[in-house]
Amino acid sequence: MYLTMNRFKVKAGHEAEFEEVWKTRDSHLKSVPGFVAFHLLKGPERDGHTLYASHTAWESEQAFTAWTKSEAFRAAHAGAGAHKEMYDGPPELEIFESVQSLS
Amino acid sequence: MYLTMNRFKVKAGHEAEFEEVWKTRDSHLKSVPGFVAFHLLKGPERDGHTLYASHTAWESEQAFTAWTKSEAFRAAHAGAGAHKEMYDGPPELEIFESVQSLS
Repeated sequence: MYLTMNRFKVKAGHEAEFEEVWKTRDSHLKSVPGFVAFHLLKGPERDGHTLYASHTAWESEQAFTAWTKSEAFRAAHAGAGAHKEMYDGPPELEIFESVQSLS
Repeated sequence: MYLTMNRFKVKAGHEAEFEEVWKTRDSHLKSVPGFVAFHLLKGPERDGHTLYASHTAWESEQAFTAWTKSEAFRAAHAGAGAHKEMYDGPPELEIFESVQSLS
């Protein structure tokens, strides 16, 4: 599994607004070749913000790379620079490759 | 989904040793009620270490909490604390609850 995780520091009090942005966004992911699963995850509160992480699982690095070059990617990120007042700094992208799995 | 993520900073050069510890460990997770899936994920290299994350997905917070109080948990963590020379600091546990899913 190839997992792209984006970590967002959402200022305290903006959590509902942040979640609404994601709920009302059409990511088009389900039609993307090699897409496996997406989760928006709410994490711990600390230092005046709540940590959120978007997890997107892909069949391969190639599937992810092809998506970043697609029209679907551009459409999904059309509003990405908006709502800056919600965030405590820019999102941090971390990319992981599974080395062991159990399910 | 309820996701517990432990983040490990593994010093450069110790990656194979770290992965071997996980491969040779019997976590007993598959027999734990409410367990969904486990992934050991290898992430980016930076500042002299490689970031790894263990992701364990649970049906609920209750399932995770029950596991932490079980004999299976004690058995799985019997060797935690060993191999300290591999790490750049202690692991960081972050707990997430899914607020949106797509698959």
